[in-house]
Amino acid sequence: MSHPQVTFKDTTFTRKTLLSARRATVSSKTLQTQLDQLKSTGRYDCFKLKWHPIYDDKSMWPVPFHLFWDSDVAKWIEGACYFLSESYDAGLDAAVQELVEMIRGAQQEDGYLNVHYTVVEPTKRWSNLRDMHELYNAGHLIEAAVAHYLYYKNDQLKAPVEKYISLIRKRFGTADGQVRGYPGHPEIELALLRYATVTGSSEAYELAHYFLTERGNPEGQDGKHYYDWETEQRGESRWMRPDAFPTNRTYWNCQAHLPITEQTAVEGHSVRAMYLLTAVADLVCLSDSGDKPLGEKARKSWTNALDQLWNNMVDKRMYVTGGIGAIKQWEGFGIDYFLPQGTDEGGCYAETCASIAVMMLAERMLHVDLDGHYGDILELCLYNNVMTSMSTDGTKFTYVNQLASSGKDKSERSDWFWCACCPPNLTRLYGSIGGYLWDYGPGDGGAYVNVHLYSSAQVSFAVGDENSVTLHQESNWPWEGKIRFRLSSTNPVDTTLRLRVPAWAQGSYEISPETSEQTSLKIEKGYLIISPAYTSKNPEFSLEIKNFAPRYLSPHPYSMQHVLALARGPIVYCVEDVDNDWETNHFKDVTITTDSRITEERKEDAETGESYIALHSNGWTRSVPNRGGGARPSVDRDLTFVPYYFRSNRGGRGQMRVGLVNGSSVIGTVFPERDYTG
Amino acid sequence: MSHPQVTFKDTTFTRKTLLSARRATVSSKTLQTQLDQLKSTGRYDCFKLKWHPIYDDKSMWPVPFHLFWDSDVAKWIEGACYFLSESYDAGLDAAVQELVEMIRGAQQEDGYLNVHYTVVEPTKRWSNLRDMHELYNAGHLIEAAVAHYLYYKNDQLKAPVEKYISLIRKRFGTADGQVRGYPGHPEIELALLRYATVTGSSEAYELAHYFLTERGNPEGQDGKHYYDWETEQRGESRWMRPDAFPTNRTYWNCQAHLPITEQTAVEGHSVRAMYLLTAVADLVCLSDSGDKPLGEKARKSWTNALDQLWNNMVDKRMYVTGGIGAIKQWEGFGIDYFLPQGTDEGGCYAETCASIAVMMLAERMLHVDLDGHYGDILELCLYNNVMTSMSTDGTKFTYVNQLASSGKDKSERSDWFWCACCPPNLTRLYGSIGGYLWDYGPGDGGAYVNVHLYSSAQVSFAVGDENSVTLHQESNWPWEGKIRFRLSSTNPVDTTLRLRVPAWAQGSYEISPETSEQTSLKIEKGYLIISPAYTSKNPEFSLEIKNFAPRYLSPHPYSMQHVLALARGPIVYCVEDVDNDWETNHFKDVTITTDSRITEERKEDAETGESYIALHSNGWTRSVPNRGGGARPSVDRDLTFVPYYFRSNRGGRGQMRVGLVNGSSVIGTVFPERDYTG
Repeated sequence: MSHPQVTFKDTTFTRKTLLSARRATVSSKTLQTQLDQLKSTGRYDCFKLKWHPIYDDKSMWPVPFHLFWDSDVAKWIEGACYFLSESYDAGLDAAVQELVEMIRGAQQEDGYLNVHYTVVEPTKRWSNLRDMHELYNAGHLIEAAVAHYLYYKNDQLKAPVEKYISLIRKRFGTADGQVRGYPGHPEIELALLRYATVTGSSEAYELAHYFLTERGNPEGQDGKHYYDWETEQRGESRWMRPDAFPTNRTYWNCQAHLPITEQTAVEGHSVRAMYLLTAVADLVCLSDSGDKPLGEKARKSWTNALDQLWNNMVDKRMYVTGGIGAIKQWEGFGIDYFLPQGTDEGGCYAETCASIAVMMLAERMLHVDLDGHYGDILELCLYNNVMTSMSTDGTKFTYVNQLASSGKDKSERSDWFWCACCPPNLTRLYGSIGGYLWDYGPGDGGAYVNVHLYSSAQVSFAVGDENSVTLHQESNWPWEGKIRFRLSSTNPVDTTLRLRVPAWAQGSYEISPETSEQTSLKIEKGYLIISPAYTSKNPEFSLEIKNFAPRYLSPHPYSMQHVLALARGPIVYCVEDVDNDWETNHFKDVTITTDSRITEERKEDAETGESYIALHSNGWTRSVPNRGGGARPSVDRDLTFVPYYFRSNRGGRGQMRVGLVNGSSVIGTVFPERDYTG
Repeated sequence: MSHPQVTFKDTTFTRKTLLSARRATVSSKTLQTQLDQLKSTGRYDCFKLKWHPIYDDKSMWPVPFHLFWDSDVAKWIEGACYFLSESYDAGLDAAVQELVEMIRGAQQEDGYLNVHYTVVEPTKRWSNLRDMHELYNAGHLIEAAVAHYLYYKNDQLKAPVEKYISLIRKRFGTADGQVRGYPGHPEIELALLRYATVTGSSEAYELAHYFLTERGNPEGQDGKHYYDWETEQRGESRWMRPDAFPTNRTYWNCQAHLPITEQTAVEGHSVRAMYLLTAVADLVCLSDSGDKPLGEKARKSWTNALDQLWNNMVDKRMYVTGGIGAIKQWEGFGIDYFLPQGTDEGGCYAETCASIAVMMLAERMLHVDLDGHYGDILELCLYNNVMTSMSTDGTKFTYVNQLASSGKDKSERSDWFWCACCPPNLTRLYGSIGGYLWDYGPGDGGAYVNVHLYSSAQVSFAVGDENSVTLHQESNWPWEGKIRFRLSSTNPVDTTLRLRVPAWAQGSYEISPETSEQTSLKIEKGYLIISPAYTSKNPEFSLEIKNFAPRYLSPHPYSMQHVLALARGPIVYCVEDVDNDWETNHFKDVTITTDSRITEERKEDAETGESYIALHSNGWTRSVPNRGGGARPSVDRDLTFVPYYFRSNRGGRGQMRVGLVNGSSVIGTVFPERDYTG
């Protein structure tokens, strides 16, 4: 069993691509920028356990401003460790070591390790798992410890975390003397499973397994739902509740309204949902790899839940940009097909962390069931909702990624957030992104590489004690479909390659050299299978993914979004006022049709240094007449589209939109694109 | 100054029309049905102040099930008094008198008069104005007292209510020793103003004026918002809140987030908003009539608020059926243009009471500013969202009036509701509907009648001490546009008539006999002005409103509802599964185009005895393809449309929809229809 956060080290990026360029920016700029933010906001020193003025601020309830500081620090450590293993930087190294020293110093005698409940409310440990992110913070410390251990190869962070895990394990469980709690914000589950895989800790695995099976138990604690019980213990009325709970007992907000295996629709806070399901998928992975067998029945009920919740999310609750979560109040999902593009249409949240977590889940699902659909969604999130969340210079971020701006919510970036989960999440994702490109290993009577993402990169891995396989890919992805592969190994190995053919390519590709009949190719569930017969004969070959021509995408008709978005390959486009400078109403009335002609233009933006393909088309601004149909005027206006990820990098007035009014009676390709015609 | 609840007695309905038939059903059937419900549910006897088992039920907080019983009884008394004045019924008379006796007996020494706070929580009077409907219940008692006084011409109910008003006045106000409260659910304000008008009570007027001016004061009580202050007095956290409050301090739910004159968008609970604005409009009416002058500046600030809030509501937050309120959680308004047709699209509430209250507000606005637009909306509500809420037999009701059914919320009726505000509201509306048809009186150098609604009815009123004017109208409205008028008076009077020409008629009408040049006609703000020159020469004449041909209506494009609804005259249509029996998906995929041919059919439904005009057209069921546009199949399906008000009367599976998918690229007439081309 492998995780991308572990395997990323096997991959090196070679030539510059969009992806490797972003990654390089994070390495050269973002890590330091975020370290500066940690320092200036008080986070860097929080494990010193001194009082900070913000701890006095009681205006937020129940979650005070500083509640996630532990996790902000932990995620940065995790990201820094990933980058340090590639290019050493003394300053970052020193910061990591100092932070780890402070964390070690903050641990209590019994192993407890949390800033808020040590400094601010020392008597209230474990009194509000539902809201207070205690176990969420613990989860991020565990992830940091794994990354730290793998890079530094010492126990400086692993040891205190191990002690903390033991303390948590002692408290929570089904045995006498334990309480039946589980975190309001899942995260520790996936952290524990990775920790277990890397360290072999049974305790960590069992704790994660307990959290996942206990969750949503209607009568777990003294015959009551744990959150009801703990509310009573606090002496609180159930009518007293966080603003994120629209009504009392909104336990679906934390996916605790039902046991996970009984849930059929993905509900509530979208980051929580994705972290939770990532852990569930990992549970199945650990079973399938033989590390921790679940038993057939249990495996089936977990995979059933995964399938139902994944499909519900992708088919009915995901934006064309890979964003999830329409509702700001609970940072999460609305009802099926409720996907307004922006605040003035009823909502759109599409949090950065949520799409990062979709990538994490999709990556796990590719291990549960190798289906190109998961890879498609992984890539969609990466190049759109995730990539848009950092400025090209690596210093400014978005938390929410709406598909349309409005007077209330312009398309703009911030240096930092009081709840700063997203920026360091991006850092650790880019740090480990090499691990998402492919999975590989001995197998299939030799070796295999399943290629999920295209870039210019190389991976090497051992096959047996003395043999090593190297696969190199080179491309100008995501702009061009041609990928050159070069396979080599110390000694000959029968190597099978599986290369993802995205659904939008509609099964259309070319391979060169062409295959002979004996080694005919086929696409299985979105992956083109290249047999050892071919690779042994053609260690160097190229694949060309076709259908890069711009296409019109439409949300599902039930979303009531009668709009068209432009996409090209995995890139979804938007219009911005910078390129379309006489727009004043956030492109709300700009209308296009499916038969508008689209042209492409290769651009190098002087200011940002960014290269991309812009699209040009034409449309008109509809009038909203009292009678009759808003006829198309005789003269169209020109429209320029840029990649959605590139928005908000060049000034402007923050006016932006992805889906424009559809002026034709036919719709575009319905999102998500799922058919494999190959 | 007159109110329709007072003037309705001047009007008698003559020939049968849709409106008078419904009214007759309420008289012959509904009043008794509702009386039976009051008796069987415990409401009838509640003023006996005995314990009822439901008082023990604590599952609802803060509003227990019985909290509105006072108002249910009061509204029924009010409705009964309206009908008694037309046709005496000994049983109803006896019930009213018995109820009044019980109410008298329930009044406390000091004048206090409320069931819950006398029987269930006697120590907590006035402790939670925000949620507990104490003043709302008082308001309905006051309205009942006015109706009772006008019919019985005695003080049996007026006297205790007067005493109660004095007690309330003593407690609330700006003087020393008073507290600065106001009701969470407005209603008492409009009741007090009518009471003041009928009885001349200055105390009632001043109390209403105080409530309206104090509302939303950010520092009314001890420097705090009254609801904050009262929350503190109860020892409650602001995070403890009713389920109708999505977040803490959701005071917009009761229109108390800002002083009324500073509000620019209509927010929150829609019935509260409409009752409140009806009182504001009445304040202006009382000023304009000279009864209670406001001063120019104050009048202007009230009318500014009325204009802004009315226009915001009608232009951006009203359904094509006259329904208001998209959101179930707070039974109220969503953001601008957020008007999904049903639960599975994000909401649709359109409460019966809310549209009744729009009628009440529109009626007042016609006195503030005689503009046919208010009459159009009044009529739209009456024949659609309001009329649909009672079965044709007068025994079954709806509370919520969605524009599309769904698996979760079928189109169906109930005998009664635990919160039973709507059924008796309907009763009192139909009882006083004569007062909404027209307003009239001496004026314009003789007499005038402004005709807002067409039917077959007659009104007589005094002009001077010895003269009386009678206007008779006869029509088959709303099916046909021809209305025959007959004007007479004891002695000759110069009478001006103003006849509303609905916006959908687009200024098109015919008058017969035709007018000579000297008495040329004109439409001013939606009213065709018939001068004394014409009426004196043609005391009998007919008006024909044109453009009754069925038309396509579309919600505003910003609503993202790319749908078409059919309307004919003031009637909005829907499709029901009864007539279209192979529908299984609530007509969600049924598609029509603006060029589909529509035919009319006069129908008499054997089962219900209902006559109406059905519409026939054709369309198709769209497929939701993954690629390409859901092309129109070669063969269409037939579609039958019935008036929306007629839905859910003939069995079926509860599948219904007003707006069908628009398969053309042009839209219909955008709702609301506001242009006057005449």
